[in-house]
Amino acid sequence: MSAPQTAPPLACPLPLGAHEHVVLGHGSGGRLSAELMRDIFMPAFNCPALAAQDDQAILPVEAGRIAISTDSFVVKPLFFPGGNIGELAVYGTVNDLAVGGAIPKYLSAAFILEEGLPFSTLKAVVDAMAAAARRANVEIVTGDTKVVERGSGDQIFINTTGIGVLPHRVQLGAARVEPGDAIILSGPLGDHGITILTQREGMELDGDLKSDAAPLHELCRALVEGVPGIHAMRDLTRGGLSSALNEMAATSKTGMELIEREIPVRDSVRGACELFGLDPLYVANEGKLIAFVPPEWAEAALEILRSHPVGAEARIIGSVTSAHPGRVTMRTSLGTERIVDMLAGDQLPRIC
Amino acid sequence: MSAPQTAPPLACPLPLGAHEHVVLGHGSGGRLSAELMRDIFMPAFNCPALAAQDDQAILPVEAGRIAISTDSFVVKPLFFPGGNIGELAVYGTVNDLAVGGAIPKYLSAAFILEEGLPFSTLKAVVDAMAAAARRANVEIVTGDTKVVERGSGDQIFINTTGIGVLPHRVQLGAARVEPGDAIILSGPLGDHGITILTQREGMELDGDLKSDAAPLHELCRALVEGVPGIHAMRDLTRGGLSSALNEMAATSKTGMELIEREIPVRDSVRGACELFGLDPLYVANEGKLIAFVPPEWAEAALEILRSHPVGAEARIIGSVTSAHPGRVTMRTSLGTERIVDMLAGDQLPRIC
Repeated sequence: MSAPQTAPPLACPLPLGAHEHVVLGHGSGGRLSAELMRDIFMPAFNCPALAAQDDQAILPVEAGRIAISTDSFVVKPLFFPGGNIGELAVYGTVNDLAVGGAIPKYLSAAFILEEGLPFSTLKAVVDAMAAAARRANVEIVTGDTKVVERGSGDQIFINTTGIGVLPHRVQLGAARVEPGDAIILSGPLGDHGITILTQREGMELDGDLKSDAAPLHELCRALVEGVPGIHAMRDLTRGGLSSALNEMAATSKTGMELIEREIPVRDSVRGACELFGLDPLYVANEGKLIAFVPPEWAEAALEILRSHPVGAEARIIGSVTSAHPGRVTMRTSLGTERIVDMLAGDQLPRIC
Repeated sequence: MSAPQTAPPLACPLPLGAHEHVVLGHGSGGRLSAELMRDIFMPAFNCPALAAQDDQAILPVEAGRIAISTDSFVVKPLFFPGGNIGELAVYGTVNDLAVGGAIPKYLSAAFILEEGLPFSTLKAVVDAMAAAARRANVEIVTGDTKVVERGSGDQIFINTTGIGVLPHRVQLGAARVEPGDAIILSGPLGDHGITILTQREGMELDGDLKSDAAPLHELCRALVEGVPGIHAMRDLTRGGLSSALNEMAATSKTGMELIEREIPVRDSVRGACELFGLDPLYVANEGKLIAFVPPEWAEAALEILRSHPVGAEARIIGSVTSAHPGRVTMRTSLGTERIVDMLAGDQLPRIC
């Protein structure tokens, strides 16, 4: 017979004493904190530095330069098509390190939990973080948990801070961007932001739209190794492409010229943007980057990006100019030119 | 005449456009985020790595070992006698690094702000962090700001993650604690926790009680250099002395024996503890440590601690034994012996 003879074993029951929900005592530093550590965090983030249970993790580094990046994650809802807050918390920080040319190594993870949070929710998030850390090849080496009263938080906020090591010759950054550089985008814009928005609005888009949340460490590594002339990379999270380009134009004192028809945007995302009056250039992504490379390196960079699943739809979307320092412009599909200004307000709060 | 001829210059007006309060757009990654960075964070945390405004800070390290520690701070109220959330956020992480024997070097700072927070409050906290970082000799090198809707947070939550470097020979940790070690406490217990509690209850204690919030990096450095035989240090934050000792007893598989009359507690703290039914051994401190040193090093360690203002009231409060591994006991002032168990619930939430 095809039906199983016995019920499948229960998913590991939560052995947190009598608690099914977070109470204030889980942030006390006492017995309940120790149980939380033993029953939720340690099994997921299985790591010797964490297991030592000192208040700091001690780790080897080579001489040279390290990169440090921090991000807090407050995304709402916690779970969405294509990911959840735990994956964002790992990939977000990993990506900030990777686009700087660093090899991500270690993460800290700090949780602010709202009293009453079901442990099943916490466990799902923590397990997702652990899987994301394995995929991104980083270790979660130290952590912290605080609990706030009901109504003083919103389920789970996570901070991750990442440490990466920089290979000796790597020197990337907005300040190195130069007129003539090709601007390469690793894939279509806006999937993450529009996924979150439609989830919140309870809308059904076409079935396959999901967050692009992904680690970019392999893509960045391949670019840094394969394109020695590369000047800068940046991931396109809050504020989207426009904020990243405007910031980099300001820092490098160059201008940026985009070609609208070269910028990939999925039909479903474009449709939702029209419906909500949003511009995909301003919508957040969680697995996209732009790279600035001298024109003679552009084709090589494109080939490297396209050979990786995360960069399969990469395109050259414009170039850097000395003509209008600090300003980003776009040649529209209608043949006109417009200024792509920085996001003025907040079109989508709590996107990450 | 003694009155000033002209009004004193205004405290630097906040140039954040038309805003006097945080709005959701300040977490957008767009123009408002950039203004927040330019007008509040950059002037306070004046640092070249931060000024580069890349999404990661790149910093030199020597070969060897680094220590990483993270903590989120949710203390309520934000300001209290002897400190505020900004100072705690710096000293808390600095102390976690320092007690591991590391020299604290770099901090990240990530803020979760509640919509509607007055900028004057944020600025006071950020300025306090900057001053605390100078005192603790660390640089705030990278950061992040998120904004959540009114009612989804509580004014300000801060995460700091710290990086320290470990001198080559330093090897400290709970696992190194040995029977015979003297247990040295750097000063009286409970000042921070009782200060927070009385503030929340709107009580007036005697005028001089205030938080003991202080950086311990100098004290730790002096101990590590002056007492080569030292085995471990730990700061006494959430869960107080009892949690620290119980954790260390469990890790080192030793017992701890305390002598109650040797444990310093201020009269005002003792009085408040009696009133609220608290035990000072379980109350949080933010500028106290315990050190474990072999008996032949105890006097030297005591002398080093007492020669620094932060450790002036240091005392030997007990010793490590092989008699009851994993258990902490105390010889009371009445001559009886009692078990000092781990904090079971949470006597004082949101203490740090």
